Amino acid sequence: MSLTLATTLHRCKPSILVHLAISPPKPLLIANPVEAGLFPILLFLHGFLLENSFYSQLMQHIASHGFIVIAPQLYKLPKTDASDEIKSTAAITNWLSEGLSKLLPQNVKPDLSKLALSGHSRGGKTAFALALKKLNTSTTLNFSAIIGVDPVDGLGKAVQISPPVLTFSPHSFNFNMPVLIIGSGLGEVQRNPLFLACAPKGVSHEEFYSECNKPAWHFVAKDYGHFDILDDVTKGILGKSTCCLCKNGNSRKPMRSFAGGVIVAFLKGYLKGDNSDLLAIRDKRLVAPVDLQIEYSV
Amino acid sequence: MSLTLATTLHRCKPSILVHLAISPPKPLLIANPVEAGLFPILLFLHGFLLENSFYSQLMQHIASHGFIVIAPQLYKLPKTDASDEIKSTAAITNWLSEGLSKLLPQNVKPDLSKLALSGHSRGGKTAFALALKKLNTSTTLNFSAIIGVDPVDGLGKAVQISPPVLTFSPHSFNFNMPVLIIGSGLGEVQRNPLFLACAPKGVSHEEFYSECNKPAWHFVAKDYGHFDILDDVTKGILGKSTCCLCKNGNSRKPMRSFAGGVIVAFLKGYLKGDNSDLLAIRDKRLVAPVDLQIEYSV
Repeated sequence: MSLTLATTLHRCKPSILVHLAISPPKPLLIANPVEAGLFPILLFLHGFLLENSFYSQLMQHIASHGFIVIAPQLYKLPKTDASDEIKSTAAITNWLSEGLSKLLPQNVKPDLSKLALSGHSRGGKTAFALALKKLNTSTTLNFSAIIGVDPVDGLGKAVQISPPVLTFSPHSFNFNMPVLIIGSGLGEVQRNPLFLACAPKGVSHEEFYSECNKPAWHFVAKDYGHFDILDDVTKGILGKSTCCLCKNGNSRKPMRSFAGGVIVAFLKGYLKGDNSDLLAIRDKRLVAPVDLQIEYSV
Repeated sequence: MSLTLATTLHRCKPSILVHLAISPPKPLLIANPVEAGLFPILLFLHGFLLENSFYSQLMQHIASHGFIVIAPQLYKLPKTDASDEIKSTAAITNWLSEGLSKLLPQNVKPDLSKLALSGHSRGGKTAFALALKKLNTSTTLNFSAIIGVDPVDGLGKAVQISPPVLTFSPHSFNFNMPVLIIGSGLGEVQRNPLFLACAPKGVSHEEFYSECNKPAWHFVAKDYGHFDILDDVTKGILGKSTCCLCKNGNSRKPMRSFAGGVIVAFLKGYLKGDNSDLLAIRDKRLVAPVDLQIEYSV
């Protein structure tokens, strides 16, 4: 019996150590600058019945300004309850310090001390639920800012998705971080009498903003709809449905460009200490590509 | 309006290109040698109600002999039908060439031309279903060898899991690659009258082997059970259940060591062109840690 054979059948070969790696708990789409550097991170949660890839243009816009944008695919078929999505988001957050740098080009480094949380539609609700520790889910990394892109908490005040986030009490959100809420003016409009509005009034951006504390920013693009931040082309059955479920604007590009731009301005302000773009948007020194209503409390 | 502002709100910043990365379609556990080199790959599919982490000792044993072992978590709650698992395995296979090297240490290179497919229990069935193109699912990489570790195709001849793999006709497997089938002698024994056997006779290792063509190897560890290739300690509700659902041997280590060793010997033979260990096991020049029945057709 040779040593080689005994080693093969009985135990690990001592000359080669083994490394065990764990990939992310959910599939991720990642947009990152190719330029070398240390960049803040934005975790972005997709909306109901949507795929992370539908946000690729928005993600690339944000990433091109020096951010690493990470969009998990939280589910394909959602449950009524959002608990699994919240837990998955926490698990992904906890995985970042262990695994993210392995998925990036070698000279692109994630700055784990500058992490923002965001989501669109139901993903916005999930982001706030995690930030508010609604399930007592803790994360090993702290979030420094939170963004809701047309966030929605259910079908109406009496039909919130569990766990509910909105309390209908002003300034009730008891976390300590700056907030950006982006709203779509047409989100609360029914496309036709057969469909519900995609972002029903009462459980959408206005109510989310009203429950925030300082500092908080609220930008509403009046003539655009709930899906107008998505890619121009979204494939598959789910992708095709985005044409027709919501009341949308005439084209997605202006709303998507604005959303990407104001997210960049907000993150530059609160994660990079340069609020010049955010103030210029507020003061309308820049003509935005969409008609805007602006509120803020700083 | 400064250029910076216009850039922020309207479009991607031209000076930083963006890279979009896609992480694996399912979470993966990966065991790889830390030593530098180019290594063959073994894709390993977990069994019914089991987690990929339950195989960490087996995976590390195999990896330590110079292989990259990749175990996806295909599901937590399985469906009756195995179609999703087969499609996910194909998707993971297709992702390997794009993403695997990013998850490995820099000097550990995957040899995509030497890829083997394997699985335990229901995972073994899934592996064969993919190799047999049961759903007409094709992969961009070819498999060079296949391994079933106590594979099971349902509860009995009349209760196969869809899509069925076994045809009950000898030598029906019409793929062209070497096969290793590892069986557990106690897998077909009911632990008590309340439970079904974990690997019921008729849809288990014997039938899988009988439907193979040359070259094929069949090793059965007589006094060990269906779960005896798992880690000594398996956590959580699912992990704890592995103590008591199947008729098992007295300890897992001998069976797990044998399974790891014979997988290494088989892969060395067919992927690395060195069949010395495999022949030594066949000829009993090595005392295996378990009592063996051996069949082969080469």
